[in-house]
Amino acid sequence: MADLPNCETLLLNLEAGVLNVTLNRPDSRNAMSLAMVHELRAVLEGVRHDANVRALVLRGAAGHFCAGGDIKDMAGARAKGGDAYRELNRAFGAMLEEFQAAPQVVIAVLEGAVLGGGFGLACISDIAIAAESCKFGLPETTLGILPAQIAPFVVKRVGLTQARRLALTAARFDGLEALHLGLVHYCESSENLDVRLAEVLDQVRKCAPGANAQTKALLLATETQELGALLDSAAEQFAAAVTGAEGIEGTMAFVQKRAPKWAL
Amino acid sequence: MADLPNCETLLLNLEAGVLNVTLNRPDSRNAMSLAMVHELRAVLEGVRHDANVRALVLRGAAGHFCAGGDIKDMAGARAKGGDAYRELNRAFGAMLEEFQAAPQVVIAVLEGAVLGGGFGLACISDIAIAAESCKFGLPETTLGILPAQIAPFVVKRVGLTQARRLALTAARFDGLEALHLGLVHYCESSENLDVRLAEVLDQVRKCAPGANAQTKALLLATETQELGALLDSAAEQFAAAVTGAEGIEGTMAFVQKRAPKWAL
Amino acid sequence: MADLPNCETLLLNLEAGVLNVTLNRPDSRNAMSLAMVHELRAVLEGVRHDANVRALVLRGAAGHFCAGGDIKDMAGARAKGGDAYRELNRAFGAMLEEFQAAPQVVIAVLEGAVLGGGFGLACISDIAIAAESCKFGLPETTLGILPAQIAPFVVKRVGLTQARRLALTAARFDGLEALHLGLVHYCESSENLDVRLAEVLDQVRKCAPGANAQTKALLLATETQELGALLDSAAEQFAAAVTGAEGIEGTMAFVQKRAPKWAL
Repeated sequence: MADLPNCETLLLNLEAGVLNVTLNRPDSRNAMSLAMVHELRAVLEGVRHDANVRALVLRGAAGHFCAGGDIKDMAGARAKGGDAYRELNRAFGAMLEEFQAAPQVVIAVLEGAVLGGGFGLACISDIAIAAESCKFGLPETTLGILPAQIAPFVVKRVGLTQARRLALTAARFDGLEALHLGLVHYCESSENLDVRLAEVLDQVRKCAPGANAQTKALLLATETQELGALLDSAAEQFAAAVTGAEGIEGTMAFVQKRAPKWAL
Repeated sequence: MADLPNCETLLLNLEAGVLNVTLNRPDSRNAMSLAMVHELRAVLEGVRHDANVRALVLRGAAGHFCAGGDIKDMAGARAKGGDAYRELNRAFGAMLEEFQAAPQVVIAVLEGAVLGGGFGLACISDIAIAAESCKFGLPETTLGILPAQIAPFVVKRVGLTQARRLALTAARFDGLEALHLGLVHYCESSENLDVRLAEVLDQVRKCAPGANAQTKALLLATETQELGALLDSAAEQFAAAVTGAEGIEGTMAFVQKRAPKWAL
Repeated sequence: MADLPNCETLLLNLEAGVLNVTLNRPDSRNAMSLAMVHELRAVLEGVRHDANVRALVLRGAAGHFCAGGDIKDMAGARAKGGDAYRELNRAFGAMLEEFQAAPQVVIAVLEGAVLGGGFGLACISDIAIAAESCKFGLPETTLGILPAQIAPFVVKRVGLTQARRLALTAARFDGLEALHLGLVHYCESSENLDVRLAEVLDQVRKCAPGANAQTKALLLATETQELGALLDSAAEQFAAAVTGAEGIEGTMAFVQKRAPKWAL
């Protein structure tokens, strides 16, 4: 069962198998504070083993997704010395690693500022839906700093060629260019964001939760595992899935021309 | 010389250096049976060492490419227990590995259903030509099972970002979207499929067979080999090619402003 | 300080932190000779440690970028035997490796012929601006030889799927298709090439030189390093940057709503 923490920086709403997580620091365009990083990690820990939660929807309050790292936390780290910066930065990266590996389908709904750390968070989503009017960008180098923790996720998302241009020019761009870059899957007018989200969630509900979790892990594993060994273990997973509860229900429902239990 | 097996599930036609392989189980939209997997592997084994066969064209009979795994084979495997599923699945993956590494240029001509295992087979082609009306999709997770053997080939083909959306939503899409996703190289009306195929084959015939086979192997090797070592061995291959029969004929034909022997 | 060599095959012009490097062998459409390879490596060695040089702009004289390897060098190597071919080829690849790793932002301005080795050189740029009328192509296999040293850079640039088609068919294409393939970042009419270049250089000047050099190295490292270790060292680099001269100047300028020193 989901075991959700009390949060100061997030709004949580669990409904019909979908956990809506809203970054909620509107005064700073939902800048990513250390507290927010901790709460996001606690939320994920709380739902990770709950197969009833099939999707996580990440979005921001008040018209922005996330404007990047929080300046006040930076100032606080400065007082504590260099190690504090390192720990602050690395904790954010650990959160990205964990969300990328979440067994649930992670959907990002992007509006307004999607900058720096917010850009990185968008890059680990399984499905990203952007408003046309989004402002994407990697402003770090204009501040004399680095897009440090997000670098590998940005490269994986848009490729080395585009990642270099975006990081070395700090160019801003909108939702349509994000679509062309392959950073997001959909670009919508603001009023259509929720329509698209509902459509995507309907598709996700037709897929078996366990099969989806295993498939996601398998797709991620292809990036690091050697081909032959990966195919060997994939064949074992396939055999287990076909003979398991979901595989039996899914193929039976198909033959009987009815919806499987998880799609109801 | 090509040594082609007798096939029950495939139609074979070798003409002018091009082996046309047609998946021919129209009653099941050319679903991939274990017999078909065995026959495809035997066909490839029969032409692998024949430099006169310069391209393999894969297509499906009666308006469909391939609708995925065969349900009857699944039922047969169920009777034999879990190991049979694993072996069935892994044999399909081995066929994909072998076709990806074929020394010939592999061209897929895609019509109708390109689903599951058929989608995976499309992903290992060197050149893919899709009809606009194609129906692409990864329906596995809606059946409670996994796109197990095809996962690495799909990720390599369309990238991790799109692979996740396609596998975790089981979305269907057509030839034009396949073109935008980079899954295929051309999207054509049905009547233009063969025109495009002929054009591509003309291009392939202008390229030296041995140089093409080595270049293909080199491109595939870039995915797994360390850069410096790869460039070292590539330089040796280059020197061997320039001083070899094809290199001498090709550069001489260039200077003499005539077509090289292989392009006649 | 920049220590630029005398060059026979290149025109050099250092102005306002930008080193313009023009391939200048117009009689052969700037074909890449061994002398040009040596001079390019010497130029890079001369500016590598000069933080005042923030961008390298590569272009070709007289309306062409680079038509590939030089035929006369090939003939000379033939006289010396196979080892000479290997060394000639490998030196070109070493130049590509070095330019890819240049701490400066490398911008390619592409016109006319961008073939073979010229195509490979375009592939290592951080930002590529192509004229619509460019002629891109990999003609090697039509000559019976291999795109040997450029293979890994082409695959990294356009992906394995497109690299296979381009190399195995030797297809020619223009600037707009190069944009669609993700090979270049901009496609412009010939008269707009310099406008776009000026705009990109303005963006680059807003980014701190040291931060840009480190970010570029970090982005390239994501392709070979394991994720966790990379994020650990990225966090250390982040802490060092924030507390370093550029980080202090950049964040202070941001707070004070003024341009940082490097952007003047």
